Amino acid sequence: MMRIAFQGERGAYSEQAIFKHFGEECEAVPCHELEDVFRRVVRGEVDAGVVPIENSLAGSINKTYDLFLDHDLKIIGEIYLRIHHSLLGNRDSSLAGIRHVYSHPQALAQCEDFLRKLGVEPHPTYDTAGAAKWVRESGRRDAAAIASVIAAQEYGLVVLVEGVETLENNATRFLVISQEVSPVREECKTSIVFETRDLPAALYKCLGGFATNGVNLTKLESRPIRGENWKYLFYLDFDGHLDDPPVNRALEELAYFTVTLKVLSSYPKGDEV
Amino acid sequence: MMRIAFQGERGAYSEQAIFKHFGEECEAVPCHELEDVFRRVVRGEVDAGVVPIENSLAGSINKTYDLFLDHDLKIIGEIYLRIHHSLLGNRDSSLAGIRHVYSHPQALAQCEDFLRKLGVEPHPTYDTAGAAKWVRESGRRDAAAIASVIAAQEYGLVVLVEGVETLENNATRFLVISQEVSPVREECKTSIVFETRDLPAALYKCLGGFATNGVNLTKLESRPIRGENWKYLFYLDFDGHLDDPPVNRALEELAYFTVTLKVLSSYPKGDEV
Repeated sequence: MMRIAFQGERGAYSEQAIFKHFGEECEAVPCHELEDVFRRVVRGEVDAGVVPIENSLAGSINKTYDLFLDHDLKIIGEIYLRIHHSLLGNRDSSLAGIRHVYSHPQALAQCEDFLRKLGVEPHPTYDTAGAAKWVRESGRRDAAAIASVIAAQEYGLVVLVEGVETLENNATRFLVISQEVSPVREECKTSIVFETRDLPAALYKCLGGFATNGVNLTKLESRPIRGENWKYLFYLDFDGHLDDPPVNRALEELAYFTVTLKVLSSYPKGDEV
Repeated sequence: MMRIAFQGERGAYSEQAIFKHFGEECEAVPCHELEDVFRRVVRGEVDAGVVPIENSLAGSINKTYDLFLDHDLKIIGEIYLRIHHSLLGNRDSSLAGIRHVYSHPQALAQCEDFLRKLGVEPHPTYDTAGAAKWVRESGRRDAAAIASVIAAQEYGLVVLVEGVETLENNATRFLVISQEVSPVREECKTSIVFETRDLPAALYKCLGGFATNGVNLTKLESRPIRGENWKYLFYLDFDGHLDDPPVNRALEELAYFTVTLKVLSSYPKGDEV
């Protein structure tokens, strides 16, 4: 049985992403920190890890980007998951009695309109499923969590209101990380990270090889270089496999204009939601 | 006396940024939410607002980027502030007695090594100064906050340990927002936001005018377009003023390759730290 690590408590959206991608027949291994997911994959304690990389409303998950630099791991897949938040309470609670709502700050922000109308006090926590667990353990009737319906099942809570998010199209993209690349010949995406040389129009020159070789960019993200304030690394996703000649030519040209170039590998594209 | 809005409680790093930029002779107006800062400037209730845009370790503040789209405001300045975190407790507390530490999740993360060695439980809160205020109000001897030395003065707390961050070069860049552009002829920066046309090599083409006119890019940030999953807006900062002919030519060329182009204005460069 495959063992797949994720960050958070049981019932987290990351655990849902695992089951969507690997099926119910794998073992999902909860980790306290995002960094623990990377570490466990590096040490071979699990077969793979699933980490969130961006949310359609909140944007990129910066911490995940940074962790790719510190660990020599490969991306072997991506997963798109639609996020539905619900208000979960203890069995003896009622919507009218709820005064305090616990969840991850991002989830609280995504349900702001609902919480304001309800007139409750929001409390930030480290993660959504952890908030559900806490509400159950506290046994409080005036406290509720914002988390998934799966988290309600996991912790024996009741769903007081389903679908409490303001915007409907809330989705998260996850990446599957592993020690080894799996040989893939399906429709692929490739992820790289680079630092430009100190040249005029450096970024423009870095993108030139992709433009002239017809390689389609799907995402460009900048992250601060630690220790060098106000300088940036670029994370780039593009369509195609490392073995494709146009990709190869683009990367060869890119190498000339960069001081650092790390290829995070090619992997099959996930189905967008 | 100038009235300048900021998000957070008194003693917040944003308030410090206000005093650094405007001097001690202005009135800093605290706001609950970042959005309130924008709203108050729009309504003319304050003369300007100061909002964080990026941190040298954590990266861009996504929420601030999004708020520029929703509000028609100008950027009239930028402020760089070095961030020093300290551990603050009540007057009758001692380091040995601290069991729980409250702060913004980002501040907690930046002091992870210190907290781990101390063996205390971290608790996320909405902001650093708010955590300090809460510790004071609770009167607890086993609870401390991670915030600035200024926050300790503000709330009558004692500094148990000064400088508890893991990495030294922690700095935040703030922007000054206003209804009106001020005429400036010093060394300037300009900020814009655009969405590319649906063309092959669209981003490359968008950057072409800057490359060929010798306009130096200082920051490129992508943000999800709300309502259109996995499509992005780009926020671009570059050296120069809107009235400079090379900047003008670059923007004219850019306009051809974009479906949306919003200029957030030119403003004097801050002194980097």
